[in-house]
Amino acid sequence: MQGSKGALKRQKIMKQINAKTKVCILIGDPVGHSLSPLIHNASFRALGINFVYLAFQVKDRDFENAIKGMKAFNFQGASITIPHKVRAVEHMDSLDPVARKIGSINTIVNQNGKLKGFNSDGMGALKALQDHRVDLNGKSIFVLGAGGVARAISFALAMSSQLKELHIGGIIKEEINCLVNDLRGVTEATIQGEVIGGGAFWGKIPKFDILINCTPIGMYPNTDKSPVPDDFLGKEQLVFDVVYNPPKTRLIKEAERIGCDTISGMEMFINQAVVQFEHWTGEKAPEEVMRKVVLDHLAER
Amino acid sequence: MQGSKGALKRQKIMKQINAKTKVCILIGDPVGHSLSPLIHNASFRALGINFVYLAFQVKDRDFENAIKGMKAFNFQGASITIPHKVRAVEHMDSLDPVARKIGSINTIVNQNGKLKGFNSDGMGALKALQDHRVDLNGKSIFVLGAGGVARAISFALAMSSQLKELHIGGIIKEEINCLVNDLRGVTEATIQGEVIGGGAFWGKIPKFDILINCTPIGMYPNTDKSPVPDDFLGKEQLVFDVVYNPPKTRLIKEAERIGCDTISGMEMFINQAVVQFEHWTGEKAPEEVMRKVVLDHLAER
Repeated sequence: MQGSKGALKRQKIMKQINAKTKVCILIGDPVGHSLSPLIHNASFRALGINFVYLAFQVKDRDFENAIKGMKAFNFQGASITIPHKVRAVEHMDSLDPVARKIGSINTIVNQNGKLKGFNSDGMGALKALQDHRVDLNGKSIFVLGAGGVARAISFALAMSSQLKELHIGGIIKEEINCLVNDLRGVTEATIQGEVIGGGAFWGKIPKFDILINCTPIGMYPNTDKSPVPDDFLGKEQLVFDVVYNPPKTRLIKEAERIGCDTISGMEMFINQAVVQFEHWTGEKAPEEVMRKVVLDHLAER
Repeated sequence: MQGSKGALKRQKIMKQINAKTKVCILIGDPVGHSLSPLIHNASFRALGINFVYLAFQVKDRDFENAIKGMKAFNFQGASITIPHKVRAVEHMDSLDPVARKIGSINTIVNQNGKLKGFNSDGMGALKALQDHRVDLNGKSIFVLGAGGVARAISFALAMSSQLKELHIGGIIKEEINCLVNDLRGVTEATIQGEVIGGGAFWGKIPKFDILINCTPIGMYPNTDKSPVPDDFLGKEQLVFDVVYNPPKTRLIKEAERIGCDTISGMEMFINQAVVQFEHWTGEKAPEEVMRKVVLDHLAER
């Protein structure tokens, strides 16, 4: 009897925030509109595990001390967001090889007091494609955008598969050249890059197996915009938009209309959270709980 | 266990955790048995304010980085416990004058990015006496013990009132002498100190207006022990025991038996938490909620 009472008491205490609660955090500036606290806390609750996720606005000058504090307090993990994704790389004890090539991280995992950096954006995109049973080997991919998200996705795809071709369309020439050169160092696929614009540019898009929009064009509140003119999608193409708000962007709607297979930004957004969650907890993430949190939140706007 | 009371409590806390949640922490080593997370989280819930209290085990070598992290993450406050109470003093941007004299802090308040150190043990004892409408001016006080708690209470009383006499009975001669000398620097009251023991020692106790036990004698599981032989309490005396587990120690029971007014360690324990809570939140602490948490916890043992 004493044993069962003890076990009951232990369970009761374990269900509350206490000295054993493991802490994951968001470090960014600003952090006020992040969905990550809602997504991860709902998932911890759903699994009944003793974790909590907190968001901290950390200024540039305080970032190094935040990392020192993360170690001193033995936080289990962190999400890193703007403006710290690149800076964070040099503060890690080790780096995932893909994150090292991308040159930015958005996920830290505390492995026995050592901090390891990952980029879950790329991993989330890859997982979204895998969930759609897409075999990337031999495929040609057109990536719109050459910024942080485009880098993350391009390296994740190029380093995990034998792509045939990866074509980058960006706005800033130096950014495009940098990404093209860096990609050529990790893959034997044909890598090309050019500045977005003109009929010859758009005319190339339909010939690619997969189109991935990594620009913010079409994001709320500019939901009437699309990164690609409506006439330049290929009917056989897989169209993947990283924008998740709205869940169906104009690009995705147009792609669906002409019969394309599509992957919405929601898939990638949920999957990058899944990757973080599973790294921190070692548990399978409750994807449907995460999806519901995001959809409920978007519906509330 | 989804339906258990504990799970519901945790869900209530976690549902409101977002980017605006203010964070208070415990820094110590060990922290596993601290009641502070239960007390403060229950109080935040009772007031419906967006705070959370977390406990972190921080090693000696990590203390400085924990303080840097506390600033980087802009934590609202901290409780400091063994072994960091003395070390913490030198890391504060400012110190409460009484805490400076005591030479140790157990409370940090973040005031617009600057950390101020307090000692809520002394303030809690003072508040417990004030709650009993005790006028300390002109009073003679016998303090048993010369360690950290005795220092905290002695300075809080000596610096807030015109005491007539403060008599310290301790075990370690150097500790007693140090406390006596330091106290003489802050008060015009007669300050004496001596090593505990012998009939002449105990015979002095009944002549004092107030007896305060600052030793752990009588604490669970040694509840049959008392720091003072039963025959040496004065009938007109106020007897104050800092031990709160059990809420009625043998010393308090004996004092009640012969008709003394008494203050239990529970009063001081609750009041030191009240002082912390009010410093961090600016809100009146829900004392009855705190008391219930502590009593429920002690009843579960």
